[in-house]
Amino acid sequence: MKFELTILGSGSSVPTANRNSAAQVLNVLERYFLIDCAEATQHQLRRFRVPYNKINHIFISHLHGDHFFGLMGFLSTLSLQGRRGEMHIYADSRLQEIMECQMKIMRSRFVYPIVFHALSRREELIYEDKVVTVTSFPLKHRYEAPVCGFLFREKERERTIRKDMVAAWKVPVAFMQYLKMGKDYVTPEGEVIANKRLTVAPPPSRSYAYITDTLFRERFSGYVQGVDLLYHEATYSKEDEVLARESYHSTAEQAAKLAESAGAKKLLLGHFSARYSDVTELLSEARTIFPNTFICSDGDVFEIPAQKREGY
Amino acid sequence: MKFELTILGSGSSVPTANRNSAAQVLNVLERYFLIDCAEATQHQLRRFRVPYNKINHIFISHLHGDHFFGLMGFLSTLSLQGRRGEMHIYADSRLQEIMECQMKIMRSRFVYPIVFHALSRREELIYEDKVVTVTSFPLKHRYEAPVCGFLFREKERERTIRKDMVAAWKVPVAFMQYLKMGKDYVTPEGEVIANKRLTVAPPPSRSYAYITDTLFRERFSGYVQGVDLLYHEATYSKEDEVLARESYHSTAEQAAKLAESAGAKKLLLGHFSARYSDVTELLSEARTIFPNTFICSDGDVFEIPAQKREGY
Repeated sequence: MKFELTILGSGSSVPTANRNSAAQVLNVLERYFLIDCAEATQHQLRRFRVPYNKINHIFISHLHGDHFFGLMGFLSTLSLQGRRGEMHIYADSRLQEIMECQMKIMRSRFVYPIVFHALSRREELIYEDKVVTVTSFPLKHRYEAPVCGFLFREKERERTIRKDMVAAWKVPVAFMQYLKMGKDYVTPEGEVIANKRLTVAPPPSRSYAYITDTLFRERFSGYVQGVDLLYHEATYSKEDEVLARESYHSTAEQAAKLAESAGAKKLLLGHFSARYSDVTELLSEARTIFPNTFICSDGDVFEIPAQKREGY
Repeated sequence: MKFELTILGSGSSVPTANRNSAAQVLNVLERYFLIDCAEATQHQLRRFRVPYNKINHIFISHLHGDHFFGLMGFLSTLSLQGRRGEMHIYADSRLQEIMECQMKIMRSRFVYPIVFHALSRREELIYEDKVVTVTSFPLKHRYEAPVCGFLFREKERERTIRKDMVAAWKVPVAFMQYLKMGKDYVTPEGEVIANKRLTVAPPPSRSYAYITDTLFRERFSGYVQGVDLLYHEATYSKEDEVLARESYHSTAEQAAKLAESAGAKKLLLGHFSARYSDVTELLSEARTIFPNTFICSDGDVFEIPAQKREGY
């Protein structure tokens, strides 16, 4: 029942020896989502032993090269290795233009289908299946084309039957599906048995939000209220706030403010400028406002464990 | 007076943990030439501490992704780091189309000039300065567009003055330039003093040839006669010769045959298929025909030392 994030690249525009540029993989109940795809992301996938053949969905936040230059290489490798299943790519529509232009000039094609989904400038449900939804929402970066954050949220599961209680009340089998949905049970004699006596609430659904590259805006917290795990770019420290503003990025302090405002449970910082060989000061600055903050490094794995919750 | 090759990627189409895809840097008397540029080449340049800011010329053998997918990332990094000097790119003209299409769609530009030089399907001098020439020559790979090998050759230097002899013969200073060019000296009395008594021959000029990706053709040896160091792809072993032929590649044995036919002094093998975790058998197969064969690994450095040659 995993909900697990693997950091493939925690650096920013120029990769360094210790931090590759932006990429992450999120495993939600064995759906593997690739989030951004900097150059050498396929190398990082291999290095950190991510089962990359299970990736069927790739989300690209925006079209700066440090977020997508690894895409063609990764898709090519999958093609050479004989992939057959569809690959879904969620990105600025211009990425499809770029890729189709290149494939046409090279007179080349992948051996599996690529399905493009164009991102918009508004909050939008972009993916849904039985267990998870993915929503994109607009950020504020250097240009006017879509720059998106992503929210991955487990769907709430059904309530769990308390077998001892349903046996005691002789609830018919045909009614189980309604119990799971939360309905009360009415006995043949007309007595109402409250649902919470017959079932257990499902564990709280888990969620992860990815916010990069962007200026800080308090209102973004509205898109990610109560999120379990929040990744927010912290390209600069607060001392370099002017640089952040000029380059349409955020500081660690601002990332913390957003986490606090959103009521997030845990904050991860990444996309560090190469000027900071030691990011401890950024961590301290964020923790002053939001104590449950952590630094991302390449290869780190963050799990949101499933919780059981008893209740009536 | 360096003539030194650094291997950045010795693998083939799919990078592995130990071998990145094709790229090399050749330092000829402090001119740094990048030869092919697979994905993650900028990472390898940094990893092996190559002074990549000194690269002003990039040679792309052909437009398969494992030879150029790292180019945009590398050029972008240089731009972000404030490069000003021109970058010359020698490649199939379609690479210019691909890059310009992408830059146009992204509404992006580099902060320094890129100068494209289109490769042709014939043997051609493509670069020359005071100390080195670069020649491209056609190979035989999967498609009809230019697929080129490259020959880097030091220009022959001038002869060296023997100061004791020119003093003894009272050769005027104004004549020194002609001595260096190889002319005999005629004394005022009419006596001819042979040049070889007054000068020393220059060291033999050094040369390096890069041959990939290609079928084996004996006639290619004509382009690289007497080369000091020859790199030839050995994607397959001779047991897999059918696979080599079907994919328009070469075997290690064929690489050795070419080296022998060309009268090369030393052969390097690379571009190994990922199927061979151990390439020892490829080395043995090549050495049966051409003993002075070596395997390339990422990070290897091969120097062709300058030789002094005494002579009359």
